Amino acid sequence: MARVCVFGAGGVGCVYAYILHEAGCSVTAVCRTNYQAVKDNGILIRSKIFGRQQFKPTTVQSVSEAVQHGPFDYLLVCSKAFPGTAAMMKEAVTPGKTAIVLAQNGIGGEDEYARLYPENTIISGVVYLPVTQVEPGVVEHGPLERFEIGTYPPDAPSTAKAQAQTLSDLFKAGGGSTPVFADVQPQRWIKVSVNAAWNATTALTTCDDANYLRSSPIAEPVVRNIMQEVGLIASADGYPDVISDAVIERDLERPKSRLATGGKEPSMLTDVRHGRPMDVEAILGNTLRIGQKHGVKTPCLEMLYALAKARNFAIAPDETWVPIARHD
Amino acid sequence: MARVCVFGAGGVGCVYAYILHEAGCSVTAVCRTNYQAVKDNGILIRSKIFGRQQFKPTTVQSVSEAVQHGPFDYLLVCSKAFPGTAAMMKEAVTPGKTAIVLAQNGIGGEDEYARLYPENTIISGVVYLPVTQVEPGVVEHGPLERFEIGTYPPDAPSTAKAQAQTLSDLFKAGGGSTPVFADVQPQRWIKVSVNAAWNATTALTTCDDANYLRSSPIAEPVVRNIMQEVGLIASADGYPDVISDAVIERDLERPKSRLATGGKEPSMLTDVRHGRPMDVEAILGNTLRIGQKHGVKTPCLEMLYALAKARNFAIAPDETWVPIARHD
Repeated sequence: MARVCVFGAGGVGCVYAYILHEAGCSVTAVCRTNYQAVKDNGILIRSKIFGRQQFKPTTVQSVSEAVQHGPFDYLLVCSKAFPGTAAMMKEAVTPGKTAIVLAQNGIGGEDEYARLYPENTIISGVVYLPVTQVEPGVVEHGPLERFEIGTYPPDAPSTAKAQAQTLSDLFKAGGGSTPVFADVQPQRWIKVSVNAAWNATTALTTCDDANYLRSSPIAEPVVRNIMQEVGLIASADGYPDVISDAVIERDLERPKSRLATGGKEPSMLTDVRHGRPMDVEAILGNTLRIGQKHGVKTPCLEMLYALAKARNFAIAPDETWVPIARHD
Repeated sequence: MARVCVFGAGGVGCVYAYILHEAGCSVTAVCRTNYQAVKDNGILIRSKIFGRQQFKPTTVQSVSEAVQHGPFDYLLVCSKAFPGTAAMMKEAVTPGKTAIVLAQNGIGGEDEYARLYPENTIISGVVYLPVTQVEPGVVEHGPLERFEIGTYPPDAPSTAKAQAQTLSDLFKAGGGSTPVFADVQPQRWIKVSVNAAWNATTALTTCDDANYLRSSPIAEPVVRNIMQEVGLIASADGYPDVISDAVIERDLERPKSRLATGGKEPSMLTDVRHGRPMDVEAILGNTLRIGQKHGVKTPCLEMLYALAKARNFAIAPDETWVPIARHD
């Protein structure tokens, strides 16, 4: 029986824990804010694909506490990709054994793990899973579940490739859809273009994706333009023609289809609604830095990044924040 | 004694009412949300320039109610430039007598008034007045007061020019600073570039201008870029070299100087904080439409407009808003 540790039991973590639980894995979920709710009542998933499902993983509050349920074959990192997250996993990673699976948005996040865990397989994952944790331990899941994976780097040894295939098989056994790619970076770039287009725009406007599209005739051209700018950077970074016009139109169909059924709230919007800072660096910051390295001009991405950084500053001001001037 | 009607007693309306009151004018203020407070206690201005000043204009709740205190020599429109505002003024405008003074941001707002009031002088005004109404009838005012005016159109008859000069003299008598320009449109374009740069960015991020600048190293280049895009449109519309690099740097000095003293909250941010829709069309919408007419590409302005429109949609959703999908 494969032992899996799921770090970060938000919307994505809960659904992946469910799939691997269905596959017969021993699943340990490291919960933070929803710890008590999950410990008491387990996880409830209301899914367009899986229906209404309730289950109880082994529930712990920290990586240290998870260790007793290991050693783990897989560590699924489903938390946000804040810098410094990699180091927090140390105790759950058995050198030479645990494959670290990054179920995170953004680009360039694997480096930190590869450096810290040189003896472990790194599996890079691209998540398509419209989920919202509507209350602690309760997750709404829309009509899409696709987890694209591949080893990092793409030319990893065959043992690593085998671990990726086994993970794919486990997901399949649990009802999931997890294709393995020889090089998953093109898939990652495509997802970054989607995230860049929707996450910050919805978070800044507090419109879900469908209502954003409804808000003005220029709303759609603007997100298309953002995706094209990400495409320019991907091209300059060695992935030309990945974010093609056809791919952009295909990826715009998803949110557009939600005009009929009600929209989806991307995670950054959920963060803003709950007064939490957004994961700006993984998606926008890293993308812009790669673009800068290649001298690519992307004014819209730059503006989005600046606006999202400022929004974060207002959400979580540090000691440099100064109140507005008063003259009385 | 000149009779003046001030429509819209927000921050700008209160300070201009004060200046004209000081000049000895009979001032009638049309108040909306702050009517009761102003009627009971008058207006209190806490100003870096005028000090602490309290006074009581004739306070009315509507244009109809104002009429009994006319006929007016000047009607100062200090409300936001929402489409349709012009028609609301009808009763306060005596044909052939009342000069309509637009103390509003944005570009192209004069047309509607010129069409509706062909027998009246239109005076276009560009407002530099860092004000915030902190509670009903109480206005904080920073260290700048400049009201640039000129007839609309610039080649108006000499009687109109004389009315503009008289208004300038009245402001001067009341302690104000109101230069008259032969053509005030270049001044208006400059102000539009400032408003475009700061209003939507601060409203979307909920950072005042100084904290926005503090939020990331890219914050300043992004606002500079917005101003340059407005400059491209102004150039295409017959005002080349108006929004020059030197003008942009000069206008960036104001918010940058507030890094030391505490920032200013532009009106759009105040609107968002109070759950009111922003005046998106006057500044961003009209500017973009002029750019479109000339085929000017301004991706950052387009994105700002789309984001601001969507933010407005979330603030004041109409019947087309659809809640996010639920799957239970």
